[in-house]
Amino acid sequence: MLNERKPIAVTEAIQRVCDHTVTGETEYVALSESYQRVLAKDILADHDVPAFDRSPYDGYALRAQDTPQANENNPSVLEIVGHIGAGSIYPNRLEEQQAVRIMTGAQVPTNADAVVMLEDTEMFEEKGKRFVSVRKSLNRHDNISFRGEDIKKGKVLVEKGTVINPGITALLATFGYADVPVTKKPVIGVIATGSELLEVDQPLEPGKIRNSNAYMIMAQIKRAGAIPKYFGQLTDDLPESLEKMTEVIKEVDFLITTGGVSVGDFDLLPEIYQEMQANVLFNKIAMRPGSVTTVATLKDQILFGLSGNPSACYVGFELFTKPIIDSYLGKKAIGNQKKHAKLAVVISKDNPFDRFMRGTYSIEHGELSVRPAGKDKSNMVHSLAAANCLIQLPGGSNGYVKGSQVIIHILE
Amino acid sequence: MLNERKPIAVTEAIQRVCDHTVTGETEYVALSESYQRVLAKDILADHDVPAFDRSPYDGYALRAQDTPQANENNPSVLEIVGHIGAGSIYPNRLEEQQAVRIMTGAQVPTNADAVVMLEDTEMFEEKGKRFVSVRKSLNRHDNISFRGEDIKKGKVLVEKGTVINPGITALLATFGYADVPVTKKPVIGVIATGSELLEVDQPLEPGKIRNSNAYMIMAQIKRAGAIPKYFGQLTDDLPESLEKMTEVIKEVDFLITTGGVSVGDFDLLPEIYQEMQANVLFNKIAMRPGSVTTVATLKDQILFGLSGNPSACYVGFELFTKPIIDSYLGKKAIGNQKKHAKLAVVISKDNPFDRFMRGTYSIEHGELSVRPAGKDKSNMVHSLAAANCLIQLPGGSNGYVKGSQVIIHILE
Repeated sequence: MLNERKPIAVTEAIQRVCDHTVTGETEYVALSESYQRVLAKDILADHDVPAFDRSPYDGYALRAQDTPQANENNPSVLEIVGHIGAGSIYPNRLEEQQAVRIMTGAQVPTNADAVVMLEDTEMFEEKGKRFVSVRKSLNRHDNISFRGEDIKKGKVLVEKGTVINPGITALLATFGYADVPVTKKPVIGVIATGSELLEVDQPLEPGKIRNSNAYMIMAQIKRAGAIPKYFGQLTDDLPESLEKMTEVIKEVDFLITTGGVSVGDFDLLPEIYQEMQANVLFNKIAMRPGSVTTVATLKDQILFGLSGNPSACYVGFELFTKPIIDSYLGKKAIGNQKKHAKLAVVISKDNPFDRFMRGTYSIEHGELSVRPAGKDKSNMVHSLAAANCLIQLPGGSNGYVKGSQVIIHILE
Repeated sequence: MLNERKPIAVTEAIQRVCDHTVTGETEYVALSESYQRVLAKDILADHDVPAFDRSPYDGYALRAQDTPQANENNPSVLEIVGHIGAGSIYPNRLEEQQAVRIMTGAQVPTNADAVVMLEDTEMFEEKGKRFVSVRKSLNRHDNISFRGEDIKKGKVLVEKGTVINPGITALLATFGYADVPVTKKPVIGVIATGSELLEVDQPLEPGKIRNSNAYMIMAQIKRAGAIPKYFGQLTDDLPESLEKMTEVIKEVDFLITTGGVSVGDFDLLPEIYQEMQANVLFNKIAMRPGSVTTVATLKDQILFGLSGNPSACYVGFELFTKPIIDSYLGKKAIGNQKKHAKLAVVISKDNPFDRFMRGTYSIEHGELSVRPAGKDKSNMVHSLAAANCLIQLPGGSNGYVKGSQVIIHILE
């Protein structure tokens, strides 16, 4: 087995995976369930916003020409002929020297052309009529939010592929999207392999460890916006495992196995892939950790054979599975965001291969800096907990001095 | 009404709210449902990790003293007396010149003290026995991951108050947390007020707008890690509204109303608060937008009266409600993260009051920079969609030059 595996470059491996993208179907979900989903269609304004000329303040709608030279000592006096609460309208035209009391957000009457704020006025009654003294001269268009000022009808408000945030939710509500077109989330199957694995609720036994990878990967799947589905563990029996894989693949969009793809004696996965007639894209990558990651296709589906080593499994998911999920969801940005960051510590060890080190980035004094997330021996689950990025260290270096620029892949 | 409202400083307002924190109870959820929940207890290691001395490689476990001066031309030859697959153990002691084939992750036999990697060996058979040529001299402890090397039993692995990420999930699985202690999410009621409001599925009418705030706030509640519950709209009728508020408050931990707290004629909320015997902490803040935000307490509960204006509503939630949710969840960090950022554009307008402007930050060349998220007139829903932060602009300035340092509150 050892000699059959030809390592390829990590960029080449990512490319081979990304050549096999599938896009998910559109489904409609209730607006209140759409947070963090990915828009499957452009959102268009079906009306102007505001939909009418509206008052941004409490005050009086009036005709500016009726307040010439009005000031503190020489107010213009207008008759109050109506009252427009929010959501109601004044059905008549304003005549000379007339004003209408208006609430914030209410529609300005047809031929009113300005609004005076409440604090620049005084109301009084005389002979059963109500009047307002306006202590300020208004210009046409003062204090009016004009129809279409915020958004013009027909405008693309948000492009498809965008993740819905609270602000987009407000837009969707404004334009009547009681149901929102979003891309279906892919269902990603997870199967653990490895005869050393106990389930999480089993007591420890000599030589055995609890299965942490499957649960970690399921959390990574959720973080990526997809739906994990756990199918337990494969046994050491080839026909039984083959049958299970063949059944599982029908229930999912993509399938991840963890473990069992090391070069050890007991690795059944290559045989299983062969029996399933899966097309192996690669089974070894010139990188650390995760060199024995395997990715294969089966018609439209992709099988990810991630390492049983927790760090390698974690990195393999972020580099290879995450972009496939992004593509499936139709996201505009594929794969984790990459940024330049300054190394806050020295990394002294030689680095013959491309390496992806778990890192913790922070922003201090406006600058992005990063440090390894604890010890990085590949079996150290502990440092995964503190990781919010991967530090990409190109192969062939002899280490990095403090302050070097590195590229990080942002996870959180 | 106008004169009764005394504005207080925004820091004072935040302080008054944060003096009324309540912490949620602990509940247990299945590990696979725990992603992004907040840990309610410290997570302790109940065993060493690794739990036994283990091999980080495929190879042979041996006694280092049996490979003196071994090299390419002068290999040490050891008899292969066993095979340890992952999860199995070798029950005997190693005798002189013996080796055991060992898989990655398997337990090293009792008195083996080093592991030679498979690629530094060759296997052969002779007279029905199997041997390995070791082409490298080993030192004691070479290639062994020692018991407790990653984590010592009893260590606090993750402190309570931490949000569960995929790496923490791996730790929880490793230590057998099939069920995870997390803080209950608070249920936050949302009620809209305003006779201008149509529901999202209603057609537009003159003078009316669709209710966008309630849906926006529900998305903000989810972003903050709590559970929104929408109770529709209040009518203009005081007894009816009072009854509804009194019923709703029994079903939630905190209650948000949007709208109706402007200084307009039709504002019933102050009366409702009074009838409910709520203790008003403040009802006006020296800030923009959101100056008419009201917060009141009712025993252990908090009532947030946010403005009907979308921007003011958005900002009011992030400044006052978000910290209360964080406290309830027992998070270590309360309120949105604040960072220094460089203004990418000039902000020319005078700024008499503390202002919280919707912003879009980005990290370019390792530096955090920020710009306003589109036009910032307070009625502009559109710019909310692009906002991933609030730019905090202290009152009393005459604008800001490009390149100025500002503080931003990170939302996404």
